Amino acid sequence: MQGAVLYGPRDVRYEERAMPGLNAPTDAILRLSATCICGSDLWPYRGANPTNGPTAMGHEYCGIVEEVGRAVTSVKPGEFVIGSFFASDNTCPHCRAGYQTSCEHRQIIGGAQAPFLRVPLADGTLVATSEVPPPELVPHLLAASDVLGTGWFAADAANVKPGSTVVVVGDGAVGLLAVLSAKHLGAERIFAMSRHPARQKLAREFGATDVISERGDAGIARIKELTRGVGADAVLECVGTQESMQQAIGAARPGGYVSYVGVPHGVSLDGQNLFFRHVHLHGGPAPVRRYLPALIDLIWQRTLEPGKVFDLTLPLAEVAEGYRAMDERRAIKTLLTT
Amino acid sequence: MQGAVLYGPRDVRYEERAMPGLNAPTDAILRLSATCICGSDLWPYRGANPTNGPTAMGHEYCGIVEEVGRAVTSVKPGEFVIGSFFASDNTCPHCRAGYQTSCEHRQIIGGAQAPFLRVPLADGTLVATSEVPPPELVPHLLAASDVLGTGWFAADAANVKPGSTVVVVGDGAVGLLAVLSAKHLGAERIFAMSRHPARQKLAREFGATDVISERGDAGIARIKELTRGVGADAVLECVGTQESMQQAIGAARPGGYVSYVGVPHGVSLDGQNLFFRHVHLHGGPAPVRRYLPALIDLIWQRTLEPGKVFDLTLPLAEVAEGYRAMDERRAIKTLLTT
Repeated sequence: MQGAVLYGPRDVRYEERAMPGLNAPTDAILRLSATCICGSDLWPYRGANPTNGPTAMGHEYCGIVEEVGRAVTSVKPGEFVIGSFFASDNTCPHCRAGYQTSCEHRQIIGGAQAPFLRVPLADGTLVATSEVPPPELVPHLLAASDVLGTGWFAADAANVKPGSTVVVVGDGAVGLLAVLSAKHLGAERIFAMSRHPARQKLAREFGATDVISERGDAGIARIKELTRGVGADAVLECVGTQESMQQAIGAARPGGYVSYVGVPHGVSLDGQNLFFRHVHLHGGPAPVRRYLPALIDLIWQRTLEPGKVFDLTLPLAEVAEGYRAMDERRAIKTLLTT
Repeated sequence: MQGAVLYGPRDVRYEERAMPGLNAPTDAILRLSATCICGSDLWPYRGANPTNGPTAMGHEYCGIVEEVGRAVTSVKPGEFVIGSFFASDNTCPHCRAGYQTSCEHRQIIGGAQAPFLRVPLADGTLVATSEVPPPELVPHLLAASDVLGTGWFAADAANVKPGSTVVVVGDGAVGLLAVLSAKHLGAERIFAMSRHPARQKLAREFGATDVISERGDAGIARIKELTRGVGADAVLECVGTQESMQQAIGAARPGGYVSYVGVPHGVSLDGQNLFFRHVHLHGGPAPVRRYLPALIDLIWQRTLEPGKVFDLTLPLAEVAEGYRAMDERRAIKTLLTT
């Protein structure tokens, strides 16, 4: 088969890769219905994360089970399944506490920008739908694999509830789906921080009541002004830089909640500032598996349409253009057809 | 009157100070029934916090209302009252959210190591008891002014609930009262980290089930070992150093809670470590005012005896010896009689 391989900064190639096979009795092999490019793929693509030799890319996936190892009992060939970017056993204490991305046996998924994928710990990782979905649902279900689950975790970790005043920092796919999640959880006012017209538009469609184009201290001042000096109940940080984190902490009210779901790059938090800001802080790699069954139901019922973040669709062979379009912010998120 | 004044590192003097008077119609003047020395007073005493000239010390207090400004309506002369180390209006949005130590009009209390004290914003700050307490209750009520309220906040901010496995980092008065608070909130297992026999003993008396003498990575390893590799549900950080904070974060389970209630000194948190640890983090200057009515009730009913942390009682005139004893860890906490 052929798939995406990153060779170095801005050098993604579509080339021959080994067909995945069962390595362990707990594995499953999937024939992917669609795959996509993640904002976090841009870190190594831009050289911000070093790569250790050619790397098979992609960690978002959904598709049909092709083959399972002999120990797999919860999914079977022919079923349509969705999983998250970390494989998890879903039975260890961390999984049972709802933190499957800290599973004692977690394994990172890689190489999903390809027609076939091996998923370890299939029983704990994959969630099957009741039947094979119609094609128009596939982008939405694919979004549940990472970006919707991550945006949802951002809203949940920041304690968004009916009536909340929410700020979302970051207008990538995760930030936009954090807006959608906050709206669904009952937020009354949602400030989306964005300067990009297409993203502002989608943010409003997903439920943002206000769009803030100011950044940094000016962005904080604007939020304070719009909340009568109080600050937001919940701030969802969906970027992962020092600036975005400072902005998030500064925009929260004392006793408010800040969640952060993008891998922090060069972020260092001053203990004394955090102390006197009085915020709650929670985040980490989103335990998407915890939310998958509920999110699949909401998509199946057409309540949530997270697939709207895909504003570019390309055949897998054109994966390099998909990366370029996201890198240059011409596309929010690229769906790749297999 | 005479009171405690800090001139520089390890130079506390008991000397003549101006008798406090009403500065604003919202002020009250108290005749203190007792006062005490706080662990946080040791930061400037040791020179870790610079002092800007001679500084009147003390921020823990309870006593009889002597005089009130004309705008004060909730307390009156002759009543016994307790307040916290920040004066608060108790009406602003931050106070109403339970974060009185982030009150929009907060004022820091100073100079309480003296027979008389001016308390600003008396209506929002002071809580009166139903009657003047018998003398044996005074140390317990004095402890509610800061250290009990702070330990209680540590337990509350770390989501301690029935059945929780709790670690308390720090064996000062706040740490010991965090043990007491965790016990009262239903914790099933409480690990107190201490190497000091007298403090270990009081920790056990307050409800600690295990005492851990290891520190740093060895302390973390010990807790992991005692929790079958999982880590603690809640870690209450009651010191404020980089080492104690790292230890706290390392001892929590993924998805667990870390609270921190000592002013951080030189603490810097790496965003990526925090992210992959998956902890909840919350802390700050304890909003003692939020808890005072409930804590006063628990003390009045003899349910809580937080005054046991006072293991040295001196007349106010010997305040310098009180500081020395705490600095040298000969005393947990010094009560000063007025």
